[in-house]
Amino acid sequence: MSLPRTVRIVEVGARDGLQNETTEVPTATKIELIERLAAARLRTVEAGAFVSPKKVPQMAGSKEVFRGLERRAGTAYPALVPNMRGFEAAIEAGVTEIAVFVSASEGFSQHNIGCSRAESLDRLRDVADAAAVRNIRMRGYLSCIAGCPYDGAVAPDEVAAMADALVALGCHEISLGDTIGIGTAGQIRNIIERVSAHIALEKLAMHFHDTYGQGVANVLASLQQGITTFDSSVAGLGGCPFAPGASGNVATEDVIYLLAGLGIETGVDLMAVATTGDWISRHLGRSNAARAGKALLAAKRKGEAHGK
Amino acid sequence: MSLPRTVRIVEVGARDGLQNETTEVPTATKIELIERLAAARLRTVEAGAFVSPKKVPQMAGSKEVFRGLERRAGTAYPALVPNMRGFEAAIEAGVTEIAVFVSASEGFSQHNIGCSRAESLDRLRDVADAAAVRNIRMRGYLSCIAGCPYDGAVAPDEVAAMADALVALGCHEISLGDTIGIGTAGQIRNIIERVSAHIALEKLAMHFHDTYGQGVANVLASLQQGITTFDSSVAGLGGCPFAPGASGNVATEDVIYLLAGLGIETGVDLMAVATTGDWISRHLGRSNAARAGKALLAAKRKGEAHGK
Repeated sequence: MSLPRTVRIVEVGARDGLQNETTEVPTATKIELIERLAAARLRTVEAGAFVSPKKVPQMAGSKEVFRGLERRAGTAYPALVPNMRGFEAAIEAGVTEIAVFVSASEGFSQHNIGCSRAESLDRLRDVADAAAVRNIRMRGYLSCIAGCPYDGAVAPDEVAAMADALVALGCHEISLGDTIGIGTAGQIRNIIERVSAHIALEKLAMHFHDTYGQGVANVLASLQQGITTFDSSVAGLGGCPFAPGASGNVATEDVIYLLAGLGIETGVDLMAVATTGDWISRHLGRSNAARAGKALLAAKRKGEAHGK
Repeated sequence: MSLPRTVRIVEVGARDGLQNETTEVPTATKIELIERLAAARLRTVEAGAFVSPKKVPQMAGSKEVFRGLERRAGTAYPALVPNMRGFEAAIEAGVTEIAVFVSASEGFSQHNIGCSRAESLDRLRDVADAAAVRNIRMRGYLSCIAGCPYDGAVAPDEVAAMADALVALGCHEISLGDTIGIGTAGQIRNIIERVSAHIALEKLAMHFHDTYGQGVANVLASLQQGITTFDSSVAGLGGCPFAPGASGNVATEDVIYLLAGLGIETGVDLMAVATTGDWISRHLGRSNAARAGKALLAAKRKGEAHGK
């Protein structure tokens, strides 16, 4: 098993995670969450989205989050922007890295952002140009890579075509997202093989949801294909609007536990992430979906109770 | 990725699962659970344990379970027996396949069954002899293969030595259990490599707990090593007495979802297992820990609501 020696985690709990939680989170709590995650040495902490507050009320305070955030040197705090309006608001709030978003499937594009895949790429061109002018790094999210709640199966060729388009748009990194968490290891391998025929593995990130319990296994399969960047969410924050009650993003704690066991370096302080996951779960009044986080904290409490 | 074409699931929810749940389950419900699992075409359904009712009150009704059970042809219903007293009670109740249990670590053996590993093997010799005389198949559970709550690390050599001893005792199959769910993929591979140097892969089963979120990933790693038998628990029933609140056995639904995605045949009706998992979870007043089960049922309800 030839595996990478180091992996970079893109922590998406404060954006992709909170965006799909039903509980409202005060700005101060969001800031504390982001600062705690950065303090745990997560080097990329997605920190907000400059989107319609009507469509995504959970992200309405992103301006205040960025204004209030105490930033650590060497940590990136990207924000999601859907269009020029969002881009300008982000810049005004002090954002220095952005992420844009398109769908690998036509149905999800139409339902989620109200236009075709081709149109969604067109609409991002001015954002891409403005980012290039300002030398702002732009990440591309590609959703529904393993299946679509509207179209069903999505062909790896379609995923590859949209990933190529995101690279052509100027994205330095493409995050391939199994938005509905439906993919299994063999399928994920096929997608990576197909997409990496055109795009260097170093430019690809994998973004898994645990909806069908496959998140960590899919990380393992991706590592075996040479992927070195993974999106994950502290405490498994998030959910799946297409499967109510289902699990959210793969938990950062579970992924780092896997990586640590494989001897793969992330630089992250796992116990600090676990503690943060427990804290934010309590704030949200939800159970902590990070199984490694819960187990590590339980073992620690047990050890302390025994005077260890 | 060379993977097996078929896999056998040993469903342990009605024994290893319920044994670690705190809610008391009436005998009639246990029987219904076992019959539903068998009807879902799980071909091996562990159905009880003939152990001290003081130590394991959840298994006190195993005699009544076996007496009341309507058995399907072609389905095996093994029962755990710790000693001759248990063996005789099992035979009287109509058990035709048994499982015995030892620990790969000294500390767990001492704490869990009150004797050394060597003594635990000695104590099982009369059971093994009696089983052989009656031509009763005997499975061997080996616990703590990846770590022990008392001793910490457990060397693969120790696991292999105990597995060899179980084969020598007459076990037709050895279930290698990561009792505290602490192992990750690389470690699991090492253990399988070491144990399979002496024992044919076909005689090995892997038994994972999801305590640290690694269950499905460890199944994947084991498949890649050629393992074709896995223990799992409907709805992820069970828990970990060494990490209160932690997840239990890897869920049958999550494992079968992985296998189906990989094109590996189990013969099991996944939706029937998912429905059973939902039903028993409600009976226990606990949340369903099978993520694939929950997601499949949510998708089905959504489809029905849309008239699909």
